[in-house]
Amino acid sequence: MRENTIRTIWQRGEPVINGWLTIPSAWTAELMAHQGWDSLIVDTQHGLIGYETALAMLQAISTTQVIPLARSAWNEPSGIMKLLDAGALGIICPMVNNRKEAEAFVGACRYAPLGYRSAGPTRAALYAGDDYLLKANESIIAMAMIETVEALNNVDEIMSVPGLDAVYIGPTDLSISLGLKPGGALAQPLLTDAIDTVLKAALRHHVIGGIHTSSTADALAMIDKGFRFVTVMTDTRMLSGAANQAVTAVKKIRPSSGSSSSVPY
Amino acid sequence: MRENTIRTIWQRGEPVINGWLTIPSAWTAELMAHQGWDSLIVDTQHGLIGYETALAMLQAISTTQVIPLARSAWNEPSGIMKLLDAGALGIICPMVNNRKEAEAFVGACRYAPLGYRSAGPTRAALYAGDDYLLKANESIIAMAMIETVEALNNVDEIMSVPGLDAVYIGPTDLSISLGLKPGGALAQPLLTDAIDTVLKAALRHHVIGGIHTSSTADALAMIDKGFRFVTVMTDTRMLSGAANQAVTAVKKIRPSSGSSSSVPY
Amino acid sequence: MRENTIRTIWQRGEPVINGWLTIPSAWTAELMAHQGWDSLIVDTQHGLIGYETALAMLQAISTTQVIPLARSAWNEPSGIMKLLDAGALGIICPMVNNRKEAEAFVGACRYAPLGYRSAGPTRAALYAGDDYLLKANESIIAMAMIETVEALNNVDEIMSVPGLDAVYIGPTDLSISLGLKPGGALAQPLLTDAIDTVLKAALRHHVIGGIHTSSTADALAMIDKGFRFVTVMTDTRMLSGAANQAVTAVKKIRPSSGSSSSVPY
Amino acid sequence: MRENTIRTIWQRGEPVINGWLTIPSAWTAELMAHQGWDSLIVDTQHGLIGYETALAMLQAISTTQVIPLARSAWNEPSGIMKLLDAGALGIICPMVNNRKEAEAFVGACRYAPLGYRSAGPTRAALYAGDDYLLKANESIIAMAMIETVEALNNVDEIMSVPGLDAVYIGPTDLSISLGLKPGGALAQPLLTDAIDTVLKAALRHHVIGGIHTSSTADALAMIDKGFRFVTVMTDTRMLSGAANQAVTAVKKIRPSSGSSSSVPY
Amino acid sequence: MRENTIRTIWQRGEPVINGWLTIPSAWTAELMAHQGWDSLIVDTQHGLIGYETALAMLQAISTTQVIPLARSAWNEPSGIMKLLDAGALGIICPMVNNRKEAEAFVGACRYAPLGYRSAGPTRAALYAGDDYLLKANESIIAMAMIETVEALNNVDEIMSVPGLDAVYIGPTDLSISLGLKPGGALAQPLLTDAIDTVLKAALRHHVIGGIHTSSTADALAMIDKGFRFVTVMTDTRMLSGAANQAVTAVKKIRPSSGSSSSVPY
Amino acid sequence: MRENTIRTIWQRGEPVINGWLTIPSAWTAELMAHQGWDSLIVDTQHGLIGYETALAMLQAISTTQVIPLARSAWNEPSGIMKLLDAGALGIICPMVNNRKEAEAFVGACRYAPLGYRSAGPTRAALYAGDDYLLKANESIIAMAMIETVEALNNVDEIMSVPGLDAVYIGPTDLSISLGLKPGGALAQPLLTDAIDTVLKAALRHHVIGGIHTSSTADALAMIDKGFRFVTVMTDTRMLSGAANQAVTAVKKIRPSSGSSSSVPY
Repeated sequence: MRENTIRTIWQRGEPVINGWLTIPSAWTAELMAHQGWDSLIVDTQHGLIGYETALAMLQAISTTQVIPLARSAWNEPSGIMKLLDAGALGIICPMVNNRKEAEAFVGACRYAPLGYRSAGPTRAALYAGDDYLLKANESIIAMAMIETVEALNNVDEIMSVPGLDAVYIGPTDLSISLGLKPGGALAQPLLTDAIDTVLKAALRHHVIGGIHTSSTADALAMIDKGFRFVTVMTDTRMLSGAANQAVTAVKKIRPSSGSSSSVPY
Repeated sequence: MRENTIRTIWQRGEPVINGWLTIPSAWTAELMAHQGWDSLIVDTQHGLIGYETALAMLQAISTTQVIPLARSAWNEPSGIMKLLDAGALGIICPMVNNRKEAEAFVGACRYAPLGYRSAGPTRAALYAGDDYLLKANESIIAMAMIETVEALNNVDEIMSVPGLDAVYIGPTDLSISLGLKPGGALAQPLLTDAIDTVLKAALRHHVIGGIHTSSTADALAMIDKGFRFVTVMTDTRMLSGAANQAVTAVKKIRPSSGSSSSVPY
Repeated sequence: MRENTIRTIWQRGEPVINGWLTIPSAWTAELMAHQGWDSLIVDTQHGLIGYETALAMLQAISTTQVIPLARSAWNEPSGIMKLLDAGALGIICPMVNNRKEAEAFVGACRYAPLGYRSAGPTRAALYAGDDYLLKANESIIAMAMIETVEALNNVDEIMSVPGLDAVYIGPTDLSISLGLKPGGALAQPLLTDAIDTVLKAALRHHVIGGIHTSSTADALAMIDKGFRFVTVMTDTRMLSGAANQAVTAVKKIRPSSGSSSSVPY
Repeated sequence: MRENTIRTIWQRGEPVINGWLTIPSAWTAELMAHQGWDSLIVDTQHGLIGYETALAMLQAISTTQVIPLARSAWNEPSGIMKLLDAGALGIICPMVNNRKEAEAFVGACRYAPLGYRSAGPTRAALYAGDDYLLKANESIIAMAMIETVEALNNVDEIMSVPGLDAVYIGPTDLSISLGLKPGGALAQPLLTDAIDTVLKAALRHHVIGGIHTSSTADALAMIDKGFRFVTVMTDTRMLSGAANQAVTAVKKIRPSSGSSSSVPY
Repeated sequence: MRENTIRTIWQRGEPVINGWLTIPSAWTAELMAHQGWDSLIVDTQHGLIGYETALAMLQAISTTQVIPLARSAWNEPSGIMKLLDAGALGIICPMVNNRKEAEAFVGACRYAPLGYRSAGPTRAALYAGDDYLLKANESIIAMAMIETVEALNNVDEIMSVPGLDAVYIGPTDLSISLGLKPGGALAQPLLTDAIDTVLKAALRHHVIGGIHTSSTADALAMIDKGFRFVTVMTDTRMLSGAANQAVTAVKKIRPSSGSSSSVPY
Repeated sequence: MRENTIRTIWQRGEPVINGWLTIPSAWTAELMAHQGWDSLIVDTQHGLIGYETALAMLQAISTTQVIPLARSAWNEPSGIMKLLDAGALGIICPMVNNRKEAEAFVGACRYAPLGYRSAGPTRAALYAGDDYLLKANESIIAMAMIETVEALNNVDEIMSVPGLDAVYIGPTDLSISLGLKPGGALAQPLLTDAIDTVLKAALRHHVIGGIHTSSTADALAMIDKGFRFVTVMTDTRMLSGAANQAVTAVKKIRPSSGSSSSVPY
């Protein structure tokens, strides 16, 4: 089976630099796959991406050696298994709040006897190799999102679920759940405490800690702190940011022309 | 009929700041439409965009007040007319090299007696208004690309075709045709001469001069020179540039990790 | 955040006249959005519409001021949240039969602390405004379908769920559940009783009453009765009805030609 | 090969009642195919339909016995041949203005030695039968649109091209070419004269006369006059008309609510 | 309502020869529908097929008399009901492990009072007939997959659920659940015992026994054993097998050229 | 620039074994790319493939080292250039009948000064390398189809066009043009003579000879004769053939069941 280089990087103790795809397009997926990311996540939750486009994007990513991952729309076996069969080498699952949900998620990623994933890796085996059914359980990455106060309170029971490889902090949802204004700095006390709680638990349980950031500065800070799976912005944010910057630079010659705006989330 | 604000800006003597869409996605089209551009070109020539996606992108742009334009794949009536029926308020046509080609192009954009466009503005009339058939000839913009030595030699005969609103310089093709290396600076002598030739002819014929640039600095320089329709990069370039910058910034902590590359064209 | 004019109409005490989209097409969605409806529902349950087409239809509707709504395929968080992130300003959820189901549905439409919707309004914030995360909870409409005897028996517990804005009667399912032949008149006693039961409960709980009808006469009658969200037929029914009428009118000159049929549901 | 029942109806001297598809959707195509039309035209010129959707629509129509036809985007061999290979049993070609154009069009519809169509009826043979290559030349219908003054002046040379089965009048383009306001009555003198000119020439050359109409009354009048291929409106017009009628009927209770509009073309 | 000929074949005591579609394409679906299968399953679980493609494939199959079936992605009402509304005349549901799951599955396929399917057979009624709502409960086939040890242990409680028409053995998942290597022979003792257990229970409960096979020899053996719904390979396997055979035959002239591989699952 | 291994194989004097894609699916394209072919042709002429699917298929092929080629729908610059920009490393052009047509075709494949291809290799440069604009002229393969008597008569003038790399015989069209029944044996005298004429001319002009075959036996015979680019069947034929064989084998147990048919072309 094709090597899941995310595991290799982790074994070296290094952080995985991950790109995030919310644009529903196989072209932007292929384009992003050439920019140097270690892995790319096809986001079928908040990305504007359904299954059929996700499939095309997973194909596009595998024109390169970048590891294709996907975020499932929810903690549901159908979506998780379809993304795996389509060739994702790992799943990030939103809103895993307790042990039962963590077990349901991990089970959906693993064949029996470790889980209840149904066998039929139609594209996955073509892409990753004929021995897929035998090797997938040890290769596929299962990463649970920690993004609520409930999950914070249950970090130990979540992280002790066998087969869970990593956890991933979603700062926006976590902020809302903590009663903070969404979009605030990672460095604000309440959020920092929560982030530290998760990271410490991860280290305790030998689970990889991952986190979403919205700037390279934050990404570097989180790597420094010990996170080993770090995302820097989304493709949507990068495109709107770059376009907004260009328009603003050129439009200063036409001060009257209407205001422009970028996407805030 | 809905006002074509490109004409309004031109009547004020100001430059139109145009965005360029090569990503085949209604989402990125809608996203770009919120960044402050005056107009957006759906590029069905070198963009990875076929008719069906172009239609969706034209719909997406018209969720805003940005003027939707399109580049036809070639100087062919079928493609030009389908883009107009889909709601583009102007067409940029590649490789217009002589008077005959300019007439064929302009004719495809105009109803009789000014041209031979066939009537059936299925979406255009819904989007732009019930009086579309009566007003389209004076609203739709016809912009011919000047990008070969042959066209340079024929600037006067091309620009004197009635109904041609603007010309647009494609520096990459023009460079190749001039025997220059593609991707070079606009400021190199041979290219600058060609650009000046086109702009002077445009001023002489009361035709708008337009040009493609790949940086805000170039865009500002060209506006300064007298161009009144200026594009700054493409969406593909913006996304790959921003992603490459982010990866490079974060990966400096992992110097061994493989090189990344952005898209050069 | 963009005004949800459905709430404005309700505040004036007037009925919302809603159109219903089952055709999987961004073009028919845009076409319908120009016919004068207050709102349009993209039906991902019985409409032949998956997520990717729903997204395109929501974009198409927002080329106008018509309020985009969607029916989720089922009472499932993944589908509900994806439709909201794609820009629907309200969700109609089928088969809400008891308080637990009503809470699950309403919770999926609301950010914490009112619910468990996950934050990531990728298109919604572009379309509706930068303050989306702060305002969505009070703007987004949650409308539960009452269409079974079980739901009839539980109207009070359903309607007392905080955050539920409206209920919507599906007469076909309700008829089947009541043991009636589907497609019968709204005026038949058993069905009328059920309709009245729901409407009275709605008035009692200060929840808006909504209902599906299959003719303008029925729509007017229901408005008269007190419903404030009324649908008149579906796009599929309108198209087949109009086509059937045209064929029949012209074919009377060719009596031998085979029978034609329209769609009954 | 599957019987082309259009020829059978013509052999009986009866008119073919044709439906017109401009909505890009396999669902509306299938829906229309159940309404009693003899044939349906997938319009890839002014319909919002590209090749990929046209293919899906041709499949949808062939779930019934209705004859699938298509309008090519222009008089171009690539588009014409792709539609035929996809299973259209006839092509209507826009803007055929003289003998040379008529020959180019008919030649694209016929295999050698009658024309220059390339052999490879991938779907056509599956749908229409294994003997397709042997029978297609006598089954496929070639119908040229007469819609300019130039074409009017050349009716005889156009209609005497061997293999041309029918001509079809496009009243909107013909009106514009005649200097009339588009959308006027078929009965206005100048247009009526032109229509009569075409019909008489068709009878003279034993070619079928066809015409586009926008009401059942006009359709019946044209059949009465001698046309044997008559279209009544388009699917887009039918849907917008029916929706507009419904909204207007219900909104009379809310006179203040904004004006609604239907599609004029 | 259109006859469900699967029931007719079963009433004659004969086996249904079923084809299996995993390629996401309406063209291959139509092609397969002409090869002589009694029924075709659109596999939305392990097939690379989402809802929108499944709809197109169901349309393509119904250009013929072959019975269209679908496998749902999971035991979920939303997916099951959408496939039925799209025109599938039966559903195969994966991983039905106990009575509760069997009841949930069968209930999703039946209108009240037999189940909880929601009424709105948008395409199903167009395809299968105006009396669909009245007849669907007795025509639609509900087939539960038996593919785990848990299901084996619960065969009697599963098969005694009223309205379950058939069971279907998935040998790959069953092998894994039994602790066997996936892809082994049906004839190995442990698997054979399990297969016999299911078939005997099926005969006992007057439920049809179905099974997946990967060769015509296995298919014939299973029919001989008493199975009455038998699949022979998948379209993906057939295509890769035929291509691999052709390449190998021609490449023997170029022994150095790299190894080729076919898809193993 | 990525090596075009077709040229490498030719330099070794060996034949290229080519697969042919007519199924509009990125999945079947990826599947075929794993079967050992040297190159794959995405057929946008007789394949049921439009531009948007062709793009996805070219991406799918480039998940492997197989060389992606495409057949243009016709000898038209727009289609040819769009396929090249999408990443095809060579174009096969149908119906090249004389020197003028050959020059038009080759010119569309080459940048100035060798041709008139427009610069903008959006995906091609990402896939094939940053130096694409400098190297494409010597890497991209231009292959003209010889498939009419006119072309046979003009083989020398066609093959002497500078930059033409190869010719490709289409036996079905050539048979029809020769007055033979389509689908006959390559070995029949008239066709054999024509094939030999083309091959001899190719050897004379140092142009590669290519040919379409419909069996491995024919492919081997043609390689033996001296052809160095040989196709064996199409994906559509392979799938229908394999399916038909399977159905026939299993249905012999049910002799009464209706006849099955495979696709003849």
